[in-house]
Amino acid sequence: MSLTASTKPAPTDADLLQARYGAAAAPAAAGKLNDVLRNLLAHRTVRAYLPDALPAGTLETLLAAAQSAPSSSNLQLWSVIAVEEPGRKARLSQVAGVQPHIEQAPLFLVWLADLSRADRVAAARGRTMEGCAYLESFVVAAIDAGLAAQNAAAAAESMGLGTCYVGALRNDPERVAAELGLPPRAMALFGMCVGREDPARASDIKPRLPQPLVAFRERYAAPQAEVELVAKYDETLSAFSRSHGMGDVNWTSRLFARMGSVKGLNGRDRMRAMMQALGFELR
Amino acid sequence: MSLTASTKPAPTDADLLQARYGAAAAPAAAGKLNDVLRNLLAHRTVRAYLPDALPAGTLETLLAAAQSAPSSSNLQLWSVIAVEEPGRKARLSQVAGVQPHIEQAPLFLVWLADLSRADRVAAARGRTMEGCAYLESFVVAAIDAGLAAQNAAAAAESMGLGTCYVGALRNDPERVAAELGLPPRAMALFGMCVGREDPARASDIKPRLPQPLVAFRERYAAPQAEVELVAKYDETLSAFSRSHGMGDVNWTSRLFARMGSVKGLNGRDRMRAMMQALGFELR
Repeated sequence: MSLTASTKPAPTDADLLQARYGAAAAPAAAGKLNDVLRNLLAHRTVRAYLPDALPAGTLETLLAAAQSAPSSSNLQLWSVIAVEEPGRKARLSQVAGVQPHIEQAPLFLVWLADLSRADRVAAARGRTMEGCAYLESFVVAAIDAGLAAQNAAAAAESMGLGTCYVGALRNDPERVAAELGLPPRAMALFGMCVGREDPARASDIKPRLPQPLVAFRERYAAPQAEVELVAKYDETLSAFSRSHGMGDVNWTSRLFARMGSVKGLNGRDRMRAMMQALGFELR
Repeated sequence: MSLTASTKPAPTDADLLQARYGAAAAPAAAGKLNDVLRNLLAHRTVRAYLPDALPAGTLETLLAAAQSAPSSSNLQLWSVIAVEEPGRKARLSQVAGVQPHIEQAPLFLVWLADLSRADRVAAARGRTMEGCAYLESFVVAAIDAGLAAQNAAAAAESMGLGTCYVGALRNDPERVAAELGLPPRAMALFGMCVGREDPARASDIKPRLPQPLVAFRERYAAPQAEVELVAKYDETLSAFSRSHGMGDVNWTSRLFARMGSVKGLNGRDRMRAMMQALGFELR
């Protein structure tokens, strides 16, 4: 079933749930889906953009949504850089192993774990932020940046725009830091393309693991039938991949490709050393 | 200005933006806010819950929203545990330094960075997931769990429910792992209360840093007036805190309390060692 922008009748609630899980595994929803739920469930990663400029005020609106996300103790340990210059987008695309949608999208947001603002607040008082040296502070920053970015993504989609997260900026955080002039203790976690989808190359909702594989009640309990449920999900994903010209990729093959060997980390096995070079002690 | 549930007329777009930034710093929005944007901007942390049970299908709907969030290479390296048993909620509240809203809320979701599913997929084939040993894999899991959780939070709020993130589960990840029966290489990142807000103790929208302090164009450039902008924000937050019976807490004082010394980390300075005990090598 295709749920692209070109599909004329709006998808029903059942369509959205079936696209997300495959017909066999779709859960029952709690009544009719409201507009917010429909917006979230209809998420698709967009990798083909029109060059159209974004309406005035778009960035400010995305930021207001991002900053409305929760922040641990209100510390606000993240920042974001809005990149629009074609040359800079092209160089960032190189870091990410060449992803043409980074150059296509009119706006590329780079989300940062940013402890440097806290450092500056301390320095202005002749003090230091001892906590910045610890892994915990990076964890807070990374999670809070994720919450903020996802609010921005949901906001963009509600405004008729598409998005694509780009984790591959972590292939070379030092090069990204140099390109963006980051101070010590700031690091690009991921990028995000924002723009209008090219309707001629519209994407589809990707099926996810069935709920019994990722959610448990009271205590962790992987289902006894985990192997069979994974095999079934692999079939669902293979069919999705084949029908979208992406070859015969399934979940298990993707896991092995990305995590089965150090080679699949694309250089990110050096993450600790790279982060320490950027000022994160990670104690 | 109060924007609690008890405020009868729905807040205008300008009300929402002013509550989020303070009147002086509110940005102009891109036209009228749609329902999704209004839902995101109206976020408030809820720390007082009615004991009402949640409607049937609520958990399944929150999970569908969570799983609709982007996932790096579709790896889906997170899981979630839905806790409803009073005794278990009480024990988790103890880990978090006693937070009564954890016991009050009918549902407490514990969001996990979970590399164990990938390990089991490999083990079923007599292989290992080498990548699990690296910091990068934990970073992917933590960010993706954040994206998923924030979708669930936005979904809950759209359904008339309140939420509260609980990062303090990280005060003692090993105790949480024992309580929830986590396998090696799974770790609780944060909890999330979900329930109906007690209207007698309704919360308000918290003001955030002005956009020029967190968002930059093309390259990182903290404003020259950063010290003054922070001082002004501190005044906004002090006024907010005083008017809500929270004393004279501002951003700078909170930063120093949480990050100025190792003591403020509440034991989380041992995060690396605690995570390694849970099976995360963090190479």
